[in-house]
Amino acid sequence: MNLNKLFNALGAIIFCSLAATTGNAQTQYHRYVDPFIGSVGDGNVVVGPSRPFGMIKPGPDCNKYSNSGYKADLSFPVLGFSQVHVSGTGGGAKYGNISVMPFAGNFDSIQQKSLRQDEKTSVGYYSVLLKKWNIKTEITAAHKVAFYRFTFNENNPKGIKLDAGEFLNEGYNADSREAQFFVGSEIEVLSDREVCGYNRVRGGWNSGAAYTVYFHAIFDKPFQQFKTWKSGKLYSGKKGQIDTGEKTGALLSFGKQSGILQMKIGISFLSTAKAKQNVADEMAGWKFEEGVYQAQQSWEKLLSRIEIDKNTADSNKIMFYTGLYHTMLMPVDRTGENPLWKSAQPYYDDFYAIWDTYRSSHPLITLIDPKRQADIVNALLDIYRYDGFMPDARSGNFNGRTQGGSNADVVIADAYVKGLKGIDYELGLKAMLKNADTPPGGIEEKEGRGGLYDYNKLGYVSSGFVRAGTRTVEYAYNDFCIATVAKGLGHQQLFDRFAGQSGNWKNLWRNYNSHGANGFIMPRDATGKWIDSITCDVKNNVKVPFTPLDVQTGQCVCWWCGFLYEASSWEYSLSIPHDVAGLIKMSGGNNAFKTRLDTFFLNRYYNVGNEPSFLSPVLYHWIGRPDLSSGRVQAIIKKNFNASRKGIPGNDDSGAMSSWLAFHMMGFYPNAGQSYYLIHSPLLAETLLHLGNGKDFKITATNLSAQNKFIKSAKLNNQSFSRAWIEHSEIEAGGLLELEMTDQPSDWGRDILPPSLKF
Amino acid sequence: MNLNKLFNALGAIIFCSLAATTGNAQTQYHRYVDPFIGSVGDGNVVVGPSRPFGMIKPGPDCNKYSNSGYKADLSFPVLGFSQVHVSGTGGGAKYGNISVMPFAGNFDSIQQKSLRQDEKTSVGYYSVLLKKWNIKTEITAAHKVAFYRFTFNENNPKGIKLDAGEFLNEGYNADSREAQFFVGSEIEVLSDREVCGYNRVRGGWNSGAAYTVYFHAIFDKPFQQFKTWKSGKLYSGKKGQIDTGEKTGALLSFGKQSGILQMKIGISFLSTAKAKQNVADEMAGWKFEEGVYQAQQSWEKLLSRIEIDKNTADSNKIMFYTGLYHTMLMPVDRTGENPLWKSAQPYYDDFYAIWDTYRSSHPLITLIDPKRQADIVNALLDIYRYDGFMPDARSGNFNGRTQGGSNADVVIADAYVKGLKGIDYELGLKAMLKNADTPPGGIEEKEGRGGLYDYNKLGYVSSGFVRAGTRTVEYAYNDFCIATVAKGLGHQQLFDRFAGQSGNWKNLWRNYNSHGANGFIMPRDATGKWIDSITCDVKNNVKVPFTPLDVQTGQCVCWWCGFLYEASSWEYSLSIPHDVAGLIKMSGGNNAFKTRLDTFFLNRYYNVGNEPSFLSPVLYHWIGRPDLSSGRVQAIIKKNFNASRKGIPGNDDSGAMSSWLAFHMMGFYPNAGQSYYLIHSPLLAETLLHLGNGKDFKITATNLSAQNKFIKSAKLNNQSFSRAWIEHSEIEAGGLLELEMTDQPSDWGRDILPPSLKF
Repeated sequence: MNLNKLFNALGAIIFCSLAATTGNAQTQYHRYVDPFIGSVGDGNVVVGPSRPFGMIKPGPDCNKYSNSGYKADLSFPVLGFSQVHVSGTGGGAKYGNISVMPFAGNFDSIQQKSLRQDEKTSVGYYSVLLKKWNIKTEITAAHKVAFYRFTFNENNPKGIKLDAGEFLNEGYNADSREAQFFVGSEIEVLSDREVCGYNRVRGGWNSGAAYTVYFHAIFDKPFQQFKTWKSGKLYSGKKGQIDTGEKTGALLSFGKQSGILQMKIGISFLSTAKAKQNVADEMAGWKFEEGVYQAQQSWEKLLSRIEIDKNTADSNKIMFYTGLYHTMLMPVDRTGENPLWKSAQPYYDDFYAIWDTYRSSHPLITLIDPKRQADIVNALLDIYRYDGFMPDARSGNFNGRTQGGSNADVVIADAYVKGLKGIDYELGLKAMLKNADTPPGGIEEKEGRGGLYDYNKLGYVSSGFVRAGTRTVEYAYNDFCIATVAKGLGHQQLFDRFAGQSGNWKNLWRNYNSHGANGFIMPRDATGKWIDSITCDVKNNVKVPFTPLDVQTGQCVCWWCGFLYEASSWEYSLSIPHDVAGLIKMSGGNNAFKTRLDTFFLNRYYNVGNEPSFLSPVLYHWIGRPDLSSGRVQAIIKKNFNASRKGIPGNDDSGAMSSWLAFHMMGFYPNAGQSYYLIHSPLLAETLLHLGNGKDFKITATNLSAQNKFIKSAKLNNQSFSRAWIEHSEIEAGGLLELEMTDQPSDWGRDILPPSLKF
Repeated sequence: MNLNKLFNALGAIIFCSLAATTGNAQTQYHRYVDPFIGSVGDGNVVVGPSRPFGMIKPGPDCNKYSNSGYKADLSFPVLGFSQVHVSGTGGGAKYGNISVMPFAGNFDSIQQKSLRQDEKTSVGYYSVLLKKWNIKTEITAAHKVAFYRFTFNENNPKGIKLDAGEFLNEGYNADSREAQFFVGSEIEVLSDREVCGYNRVRGGWNSGAAYTVYFHAIFDKPFQQFKTWKSGKLYSGKKGQIDTGEKTGALLSFGKQSGILQMKIGISFLSTAKAKQNVADEMAGWKFEEGVYQAQQSWEKLLSRIEIDKNTADSNKIMFYTGLYHTMLMPVDRTGENPLWKSAQPYYDDFYAIWDTYRSSHPLITLIDPKRQADIVNALLDIYRYDGFMPDARSGNFNGRTQGGSNADVVIADAYVKGLKGIDYELGLKAMLKNADTPPGGIEEKEGRGGLYDYNKLGYVSSGFVRAGTRTVEYAYNDFCIATVAKGLGHQQLFDRFAGQSGNWKNLWRNYNSHGANGFIMPRDATGKWIDSITCDVKNNVKVPFTPLDVQTGQCVCWWCGFLYEASSWEYSLSIPHDVAGLIKMSGGNNAFKTRLDTFFLNRYYNVGNEPSFLSPVLYHWIGRPDLSSGRVQAIIKKNFNASRKGIPGNDDSGAMSSWLAFHMMGFYPNAGQSYYLIHSPLLAETLLHLGNGKDFKITATNLSAQNKFIKSAKLNNQSFSRAWIEHSEIEAGGLLELEMTDQPSDWGRDILPPSLKF
């Protein structure tokens, strides 16, 4: 029995034992996962199967410029099923490597596409009927291996196309900013059942260096003939097409008889032989259902760590468990597949981006599977060690596309304050200090902190730099996180410096009125002068006015070139997660702040789909009004989330939106980088957390109903509990948090405000 | 007939036709190449065969920490013959991948080494007898393929070891600065004659990212048994060892009968299949002598472009042609083997470093083969385009280890002023401006200009940065080169800025006396204050005094951490190649400068083996004393260079030393980045240059002898020629430069001084 099989077997045992403990032996939480949620609109989730943090994510490509490859609109034909995708992302697409396509008829063309019907998807399973040829395609996935079952329903010449040349988002103009570019490919027919090869591509969303996806495909029946191609020209019976910088692939012919044909395809980032080994390690036999079952169990193990009230409405169950599912698709566990260095540490890729995921995804993973989160943190530190910087974003083995701050700092601090084990926090501090002290150089979007000279000299990033506002606000919070870890590790001098710098957001706080609110993060030049316009067109020195409501995206400046990234100053001026008390003071006190928040939500300045607004709904907590936070959260969820395919507002952002939803449904929300959670009215009457330390923590909401949506009182372990926030350590201790619900706002949680500037 | 064969055939035709033109049909210049020169001492040349700019450089590894793998000292055993090496380098070694070793006897150990005797080497050929087993190993090389002929002289069990795991300079401490580190390897026995695999390594001299050397080996006789290994453990008959991050290899058993066994091994940086294709493309048959002949002819074509007086003493012929040979070993032509991007441009790697080679190697290549130099320049521009910066140094597909300035700028300017065709000079200017305007970021040694903020703000790099002196002096010259190209392309504003900046060396020129000379490049802090010590130990703030004679290398600061790189201020203060007239003025005028130069040479402050001193011997030209330059050059050559194995002083530096010698033997020397050459007394009575434009330029030295070592007068194309310098355009026009030699210093060349600050 190899290790993997052992692991799978153990997995099943662990699952049974957990289920037995919780008395839910019959519950199969993975059945509440609907991978279609977020597949219509801008959710951009993958609909194909994936293991948790799975390296292979096979699925249909219906549009070469779709981020996930997928298009729900059935008028888009299936162009092929490629093996690598990212989920929920925006910007230019990445991956889409090694495309597989069953077809019938014409064996002389590499153009094979079909309209589809009967699409189905569930955890570990996807199926579709390709209408053109009446071929059913089913897919399941292990961690590095996809398993395809093709059912040919007609007696006509049937074939499989294996394309080593294609990928998503190909750029033809060398300067296309986020396009992928072809570097090389190779294909080799190894036997009458096996084909291997690779696809080498550079660029994509994060403008990465070349990466190579190797594959090894094996069929359960021999093919009778084959052709390989190079640059579109077919060669009958030619076994190999060697890498000469051209696109290659193979057409395999399996005769005319209808019936089932199965294929396993392993991928690797090291070699075709490793891809073959991955098939052997992960999927020994040819039982498709067994593959689906294993995939389901790998998810069940994780999903069942949070059990919810059995009587919850199905739609809520589906929203919740799909939220957990989306949270654990990314980043991708590539341990054993790192072509860049050898290390004893785990290796994760596709941080896409930490700017999106640090706020709620990583805290949720920390609760569900702290060991996993520690692995991810160690992977970040390994990237620092060998690549020089932790990424804000990374894909295809390459750091790139920093959105704002150096937000891996927050992930380190979050792990530290929550006591994650097995992490070298001194190394973590070094990695954070690298961000804080070393400019990233020519490509300021690659990693580190752009505009760092200004920031460290002036205390803010001046208007000469793009995203100066976003950067300043986020660097200040990153500095708070550095101070937190420095203090914990006993580095007083460092603490003093970074605690001081954590107030740098105030250096861009301008006494400026907008729609009744006063004080906004506004652009300032290097001499200290406030400016009222930003440069729109550098060449011709064209400027556009800047006000707190302006979002330059889509105006004449580029997406990344505004003062604030993807959001207005109304949003960023509320995004001071470490010093909400200071923010309230700067905004004119509690009443002014309440009015400001109300205006923010009522006037729709709030953007549910954008991460800088993630904490905003619960900011009422800091003026002693958790009831108002609860109201906002419930209204936002009701309006924006549901169990339909369009159920996620905006890009899911690698699960960021989904994890935000999952937390709020449970009735608490983290302030990532800090040790506490804000408590508000849950949507679930009962949540049972099976913690990584073996303890359970349960939250109940007595009398919860549509009307009874306010918290009247609370008890923690049978003791009165008056805080509307709870420490991570209190959850980790295990126990029971009982919320008594009522139909009127109460005084509960008003007195002891959540922390601010607490290191 | 494939393209390569066609090329080889054409090569032979071209050679014959050239030889016929020059009337030297019988001369075989490659016979004067002795690859052993520079193999004893610090020359660090490769002694194995290589094509011009050849990708494969097979040869013996006798010490894992030797730069070329080679050790002349016969007490070092041969550990194996690996396929990739660099020639003449210093610092930590790179490459040494895919080691081959014939052996006899014990088939149970992967430890196989032997003492040697009867080493022979000539162009395209190396042989040695492995004493332990009485096995003769001969090697020749095509561009990407090595051909081994093993002669087993005894009837005992004979075997070949193929090691995919080993390489030079392995580091075991993760922080070893220039060590190589293992990433992965793979081996596969394909048939009873073929084995393929790869070796993946990171780090090395330039701290590069991982690179992969793939190989395909084929034997002319089948092996009877084989074992493969992983992490030292042998597996009988196991065909493949898959990459699991461990070292792998194969032992092949060829029976007991004595006789010849031949092996061809192709390498590739793309795939094993490409390596196999390279074998097929470059070496179809099994005739070892044919391989040697083709290698010889590939060199003959280039060497015969400079023909010298037939009556030249053999030792001079050997020194000269070996000089040309060493000049054309590096950089390495990897066109068609770039794993990073697809491009129509040529691809060159192993710029090791341009700091070494820009002064004389590239100008010599420009004269011998201007098309080749244009290819190299285009490769640099392609690296800029896809990697972001031109390299100062690059190896293993990765920029890294900038010594001082951004000296690719000089290579661009040199191509521009010499009118090299087929180069987009506007793109070249952009690449230079990138260096001048964009800080390189976290790794200031990777590319671009470290300390750039200071330099652009203060006009010098302040003492807070390592190598502040070297950087300032070289950036000023790089800026001169930018100004030159900007002016030529009509960019007046850019010209004004960079012409101004080219005087920045004066900002570190301190009124300071040392051994009778006044004015030195000295450290200055960011406030403008001159300082007399540099920080030795940053942690404890220990300082060491700094005087113009100090070379910090080897003191308490690290090799790269001094004020000046590898040299004293006495050396760098003479290294102002664009403004020697200005330098003379700053030094106190002609007399003071003469005294200064005399002191420099007499007191041995001059360092023949160090590039900053390359131009120093001919600086007398600028005070109207070319006779003194001639005297210095001749004395330096006599003292430091010869045709013995120890015939190169210091590292050959990718041919930098060798090209310096070759130029001076011909009697002229370039000031790279500028359009002219300094003329001095040659060592060769006649030099005939067959130029790339089809014209010939001949230099004769009438009455040259040991006594008649001074130029009395000169004629260019039969017209009196009184300048001791000549424009590249005058050489390109073709013609005859006649030098009349005499035994006394003359007034020739005193009146019209070489250019200074001429854009």
